[in-house]
Amino acid sequence: MKLSMFADASLRAMVMLAALPPGEIRTAREVAEVIEVPVTHLSKAISRLSDFGLVEVARGRYGGAQLTAAGREASVGAVLRRLDPRSDLAECVSAEGNQCPLIADCALRSILAEAREAFYQSLDRHLIVDLPTPRQIHIMFPTIPVCTPVAAAL
Amino acid sequence: MKLSMFADASLRAMVMLAALPPGEIRTAREVAEVIEVPVTHLSKAISRLSDFGLVEVARGRYGGAQLTAAGREASVGAVLRRLDPRSDLAECVSAEGNQCPLIADCALRSILAEAREAFYQSLDRHLIVDLPTPRQIHIMFPTIPVCTPVAAAL
Repeated sequence: MKLSMFADASLRAMVMLAALPPGEIRTAREVAEVIEVPVTHLSKAISRLSDFGLVEVARGRYGGAQLTAAGREASVGAVLRRLDPRSDLAECVSAEGNQCPLIADCALRSILAEAREAFYQSLDRHLIVDLPTPRQIHIMFPTIPVCTPVAAAL
Repeated sequence: MKLSMFADASLRAMVMLAALPPGEIRTAREVAEVIEVPVTHLSKAISRLSDFGLVEVARGRYGGAQLTAAGREASVGAVLRRLDPRSDLAECVSAEGNQCPLIADCALRSILAEAREAFYQSLDRHLIVDLPTPRQIHIMFPTIPVCTPVAAAL
């Protein structure tokens, strides 16, 4: 089981943006470099997060991205539900549109859907804004002072 | 989020084998045809399930596969834990061995692991042997008589 590369990059970008002091912005390229994701993927991720109202993008020479209030207050579960367009965890219907012959009245399909809901509910308890740890903030933004015990030990 | 193609094929093969009357066997090709999975994938899946002691394979001209007692009594959660070799849901460490710069002290990583455990625990409640529904048994094995209300309505 794994997250899509797109959901993965989007979540990590949100963690990085959540670590910024209020009002600060970063370009897609800057975020991509820090979290080591190809900038083309990251640009698409930022664009989709902007469509969802989770990220605000200022265009132009001094432009960049920051989380919106909704993005800061969103839970990880809520973000992943938006990012995951698949209706089935298994290949009940493949990308080519082929359908599993057992799809009708399938217990496996319904218990996988139930388990995915348990997965999301577990993530509903955690807000994006609470994710960045002092050690990570120090890695992402060495110039931003941190003074918690964890960061001081670096 | 999705299951690997391998886990998907393995689970569906187990559902089909669980629908067989005791003592009956099916070849990898027969299973592959019914659940519409490429036979090469299915053969690998059966081989891996056999390594795990979940499936018993009789070789030779009249050979084929059937679930072992352990396979029949296994929960879907237990099977998926065995089939899923990934330690991380996200690309914390990529297939090429590249490591996310934020991996140390990462809250996202630990809450994703916690959520995956909630996913598995939800599946721990369901046994493989309880999965095939009468309608599916009729699709897989039209010659095996079924006489529940669901099957009678077909």
